[in-house]
Amino acid sequence: MTPLDNQQQEARDWFEALRTRICDEFEAIEREAGSDAKFEFIPWERTDEDGTPGGGGVRGQMIGTVFEKVGVNVSTVGGSFSEEFARQIPGAEEDPSFFATGISLVAHMANPHVPAVHMNTRFLTTTRRWFGGGADLNPAIPYQEDTDAFHARLRAACAAHDPTFYPRFSKWAEEYFWLPHRKRARGVGGIFYDRLEGHFEEHFAFTRDVGEAFLDIYPKIVRARMDMPFTDADIETLLQFRGRYVEFNLLYDRGTLFGLKTGGNIDAILMSLPPLAKWS
Amino acid sequence: MTPLDNQQQEARDWFEALRTRICDEFEAIEREAGSDAKFEFIPWERTDEDGTPGGGGVRGQMIGTVFEKVGVNVSTVGGSFSEEFARQIPGAEEDPSFFATGISLVAHMANPHVPAVHMNTRFLTTTRRWFGGGADLNPAIPYQEDTDAFHARLRAACAAHDPTFYPRFSKWAEEYFWLPHRKRARGVGGIFYDRLEGHFEEHFAFTRDVGEAFLDIYPKIVRARMDMPFTDADIETLLQFRGRYVEFNLLYDRGTLFGLKTGGNIDAILMSLPPLAKWS
Repeated sequence: MTPLDNQQQEARDWFEALRTRICDEFEAIEREAGSDAKFEFIPWERTDEDGTPGGGGVRGQMIGTVFEKVGVNVSTVGGSFSEEFARQIPGAEEDPSFFATGISLVAHMANPHVPAVHMNTRFLTTTRRWFGGGADLNPAIPYQEDTDAFHARLRAACAAHDPTFYPRFSKWAEEYFWLPHRKRARGVGGIFYDRLEGHFEEHFAFTRDVGEAFLDIYPKIVRARMDMPFTDADIETLLQFRGRYVEFNLLYDRGTLFGLKTGGNIDAILMSLPPLAKWS
Repeated sequence: MTPLDNQQQEARDWFEALRTRICDEFEAIEREAGSDAKFEFIPWERTDEDGTPGGGGVRGQMIGTVFEKVGVNVSTVGGSFSEEFARQIPGAEEDPSFFATGISLVAHMANPHVPAVHMNTRFLTTTRRWFGGGADLNPAIPYQEDTDAFHARLRAACAAHDPTFYPRFSKWAEEYFWLPHRKRARGVGGIFYDRLEGHFEEHFAFTRDVGEAFLDIYPKIVRARMDMPFTDADIETLLQFRGRYVEFNLLYDRGTLFGLKTGGNIDAILMSLPPLAKWS
């Protein structure tokens, strides 16, 4: 992999620092629940199809009492897209070189009243360079106040940058996190964005604010719900709900399919799958 | 749907009679285990995209003590393929009319020593007409003697019809039931065949023999293993193994993807998913 330029290095440093802050916060929540669960961090390396080293990442996973299973991955990879993929990626049609750095997080929670969550932000460069990402909330048992709080915090992060961001990106999330075969959404939405290009400083600042918004609001929602009592019927609801989450990720999620079908790190890609799921 | 011709009616009658015999046998196994579990049969109807009635089927499901979850579906459908699909289906390029009748079975077993199984046979007609199907064994804890017995019985069914069938169809199963992202097979194989056309009587006889072979061998394997003691670790192995089964069906299985993306009966299609699965 070629040495990182300043923008790539800055983005990578931010994603890795955010990872550390998020993991610290999640471990703090575990301690508040009387658990000493910690993240385990497992580095992995990537090679191009021809065997050239192509970067890698660190897969972080914690099995806790509040967080039944949570994965927080960072990766910084680069190399050359295969011809087939180069045609599908903006700016790679002529020159298949690419670089990507990002953070990706999925949390499946033990208490059915605490929503699962997904957050992912990334910086890509080909002959073009852009940011993308998003976050969405996935409650098995939805509470309107959690949905409202999650959206309000993302709306605020968006509003500080561009008045069109929240309306566009929350609609994009609605369309993206949709299970056509069940004609229903996978959760209660959030934001999804991609191809933010042309203004590195501004779009990097926005991407940082998405991370900050997530780190601000999600732990609040977890702490407010994690001690709620639940029943066997609630667990049943949770396990069935997770079945829909599995269906989305394996049938429709572009990141999952792209990763699996191009020889990505399986464990890192599939960390998004729940610890236990049910189909009746 | 247009009235069935003799071949279509004969095939449908056979698939439905086989369904009944299989369900009776599986219920008998439940009784031997002291359970009074029975199949529940739920009819469903299909309509073409324009609302025209297009046949339907009966979804059979039993939640038992030996059979943790087993689905045995029959369906007989007909109508007009969408333009996009017509291009992909032999004989439908000029005339998009189609008819299909078949049986489809997936059993997920409570005891980790008893293998899960899949069996499916079908008769399709467009301007051409052909049989297809297969069966494969999916043990979380494999026993060579079960694998050998399953294959031997299918080999015998094949050998009665064509010496090339077993070598070709068992290799086809190896290739089909493969998880590229994990570089491993989903189970221990069986047979897979498609596009057997041009000799209705002979191919129908072979398809019947595949059904007979399944009904002969699988209950024997179940009865030999269903009382084996198992540990928590065996259950863990079973649940992780089922995760791979979910991955195969949602990522790669053509029938599942075809059904889901063309508005088939979701419950009938997804009956193949296990009652409970785990990703560590």
